[in-house]
Amino acid sequence: MRNSNTKKTPLSALAQRTEEPPISWLMKMTLDHPKVVSLAAGFTDNQSLPVQETLELLEEIFSSRKTGQAALQYGSTAGDPCLRRLTAHDVQALDNNGAPGVYSADRVLITHGSQQLLYIVTECLCDPGDMVILEDPTYFVYLSILQSRGIQCRGIPLQQDGIDLSWLERTLDTLTRSGEIKKVKMLYLVSYFQNPSGITTSFHKKGTALDLLRFYEKKAGHPIYLLEDAAYRELRFDGDDEASALAAVDNPDRVIYAGTYSKPFASGARVGFGLLPEPIATATRRVKGNHDFGTANLLQQLLAHALESGLYERHLAELQERYAAKAAVMVEAIRQHFPEEVLWDVPKGGLYVWARLPAKNKTGVRSKIFQTALKKDVLYVPGELCYGPDPTRSKPNHEMRLSFGGATEEQIRIGIERLGKVLKKAL
Amino acid sequence: MRNSNTKKTPLSALAQRTEEPPISWLMKMTLDHPKVVSLAAGFTDNQSLPVQETLELLEEIFSSRKTGQAALQYGSTAGDPCLRRLTAHDVQALDNNGAPGVYSADRVLITHGSQQLLYIVTECLCDPGDMVILEDPTYFVYLSILQSRGIQCRGIPLQQDGIDLSWLERTLDTLTRSGEIKKVKMLYLVSYFQNPSGITTSFHKKGTALDLLRFYEKKAGHPIYLLEDAAYRELRFDGDDEASALAAVDNPDRVIYAGTYSKPFASGARVGFGLLPEPIATATRRVKGNHDFGTANLLQQLLAHALESGLYERHLAELQERYAAKAAVMVEAIRQHFPEEVLWDVPKGGLYVWARLPAKNKTGVRSKIFQTALKKDVLYVPGELCYGPDPTRSKPNHEMRLSFGGATEEQIRIGIERLGKVLKKAL
Repeated sequence: MRNSNTKKTPLSALAQRTEEPPISWLMKMTLDHPKVVSLAAGFTDNQSLPVQETLELLEEIFSSRKTGQAALQYGSTAGDPCLRRLTAHDVQALDNNGAPGVYSADRVLITHGSQQLLYIVTECLCDPGDMVILEDPTYFVYLSILQSRGIQCRGIPLQQDGIDLSWLERTLDTLTRSGEIKKVKMLYLVSYFQNPSGITTSFHKKGTALDLLRFYEKKAGHPIYLLEDAAYRELRFDGDDEASALAAVDNPDRVIYAGTYSKPFASGARVGFGLLPEPIATATRRVKGNHDFGTANLLQQLLAHALESGLYERHLAELQERYAAKAAVMVEAIRQHFPEEVLWDVPKGGLYVWARLPAKNKTGVRSKIFQTALKKDVLYVPGELCYGPDPTRSKPNHEMRLSFGGATEEQIRIGIERLGKVLKKAL
Repeated sequence: MRNSNTKKTPLSALAQRTEEPPISWLMKMTLDHPKVVSLAAGFTDNQSLPVQETLELLEEIFSSRKTGQAALQYGSTAGDPCLRRLTAHDVQALDNNGAPGVYSADRVLITHGSQQLLYIVTECLCDPGDMVILEDPTYFVYLSILQSRGIQCRGIPLQQDGIDLSWLERTLDTLTRSGEIKKVKMLYLVSYFQNPSGITTSFHKKGTALDLLRFYEKKAGHPIYLLEDAAYRELRFDGDDEASALAAVDNPDRVIYAGTYSKPFASGARVGFGLLPEPIATATRRVKGNHDFGTANLLQQLLAHALESGLYERHLAELQERYAAKAAVMVEAIRQHFPEEVLWDVPKGGLYVWARLPAKNKTGVRSKIFQTALKKDVLYVPGELCYGPDPTRSKPNHEMRLSFGGATEEQIRIGIERLGKVLKKAL
């Protein structure tokens, strides 16, 4: 690829670090095996995408020149004022009317999906060599951001209600003693129906984690933020909502809240958002200006109209029902076909079941189980991909993420049956 | 903003460097002076936004469940295959059928506006401390990217047909002698109806510039790219199209071509693209994956349908006529109202007239002219904002960018008349 008369790559350190994301070869495998049932993709359910609803909303927007022009013109970098207001209001309502200042529209930044918010926040807080503390396991595309930007990480094991707080404290203490606490910029939690584990962090744990971070700030010499990724919050079909960390009145100015309309409404519309404290709000808005001046107005108007008309809420209720049904199909199939030694939990929301095999049974890409499954035309996300490169432990390699998001009920049944056979043979 | 018990900012070096973009306070001034006629904004013409056309296209897409679902689902990171193919084909057609391999759909990356492409390319090529050579003056939001990312620059004066090549050679030679050539990663040219000068670079100059870069690559030890920003290429209403640098058969693998559908179709739809050589194509696709997994499918489907149906082309022809008329209004008003000492050129495309005052007459934000103009309710972009921080020269401060994009014909007439009075008094 390089020219013979030149010796060095022209690429930046960032580009040289950036690896092909795992999602790419998972998608390639799906294409290379046309009969494969993919329980790997984090796609949203195709049948439930709001085609008719979107048509109605777009007809409403584009049947008037005034609103049509507004949707086709540049907007402001932070986002459409109406969408920012609705967003702040809705998060506050979900949080049971937490302190109003925290949910001010001024603190909202609208982005091209919450992924872009995660990217820009990380750009604004972390230099290469800095450190983010995260869950073990965690959202693997966030790991790609860290890897690309040369950011270190430490993983905190998950319990049924979120991270192990004593482990977090021990980690912060160890980092203080080694002097590395000065590198720690944030704790990243996927706090609702976590990708990949399905676990929801309790409000109590978020508050205690914030208190711990606040204590260790003194050692760090700078604020340490909690980046709460609430991507799956609205995809709840069982149990009650936990308030977000924004509602923790002692430390709301240390919370960065990332949300999205992609998964609850339409991933092809790619609208996400952040609720951010200063100085992060100003910094991210400026950097967003350099990225793209602001999120496509057409998409923002679509979401604002969906929220305002109540259509968003009605669609969400249908979606929750649909995912509940698909989750039930997966649960039923797993009960029927998986060997008893495999542990898993009944999901209460989100898109995933996290299956844990006995530790000796490897599930990684090169494992016999993964390769046999592929031969039998079923694909899952190997658990090892969901663990960051924390040098203080080796990556667990005996788990699998199973998604009931993209596959049909029929495909879920077939996929789990195939996988069950592979597992029964292997275990 | 910082907590009392912490001493250091938590922000990254990038965030600390990132300043409020000039566009923000220009917009704020417009809001603070509600009667102001803004000849500053680079907005596209509101009346000509394709409201009816967009409605037709969206009704076509969303009246079928199949195409509707596709528009609302995730796509691939590089972009919709159909839109990538159409894009490659159209650029090739504009270039009069240059070498096919160069215009392969595989080399196309679809982005949220061409701004995002510029951002990601710069991320992938430049480390802090690296250097980009650019035009004097140049696109000021690109300067914000460089400033934010800690990248140095050198400016090359513009002549009627593009940069002064002997100045470029002298600059490259000086940088070679100082050893700084190793920092030089690219030459950035806004090659059609340049923002802000309106100048179009001749194909001949692009080819010679590429040859020069190729020669100095040996001194640099790595490839030096030409980043050709063709944002205004299709907004031509007079003269012939010049081929892009991709058509320079000797060095097409050193050309990064950035294009957009935002300005020719709808800025609220924010679809741009790059045509990229390896290893840049792979690196930018990976980084785009970390930014947002790919451009919103809804917007991509809208553009693909517009291009395929011929509606894009029909709309573009109307738009060119409209901008030609608005440019004529501005030209006529300038002839009538500006003092003779002010130099300017009749635009053949784009959105701008670049007015040059005698060097002693300052136009910057703090100048009497700018402040008086603001008092008289007319706003322009001060020329000084369009010059990068090149330490080898001081920034010229006697020019103004006047846009006929966003203002109505009536506003253009009034705005230029007001500005003419201010100038006549000042000169």
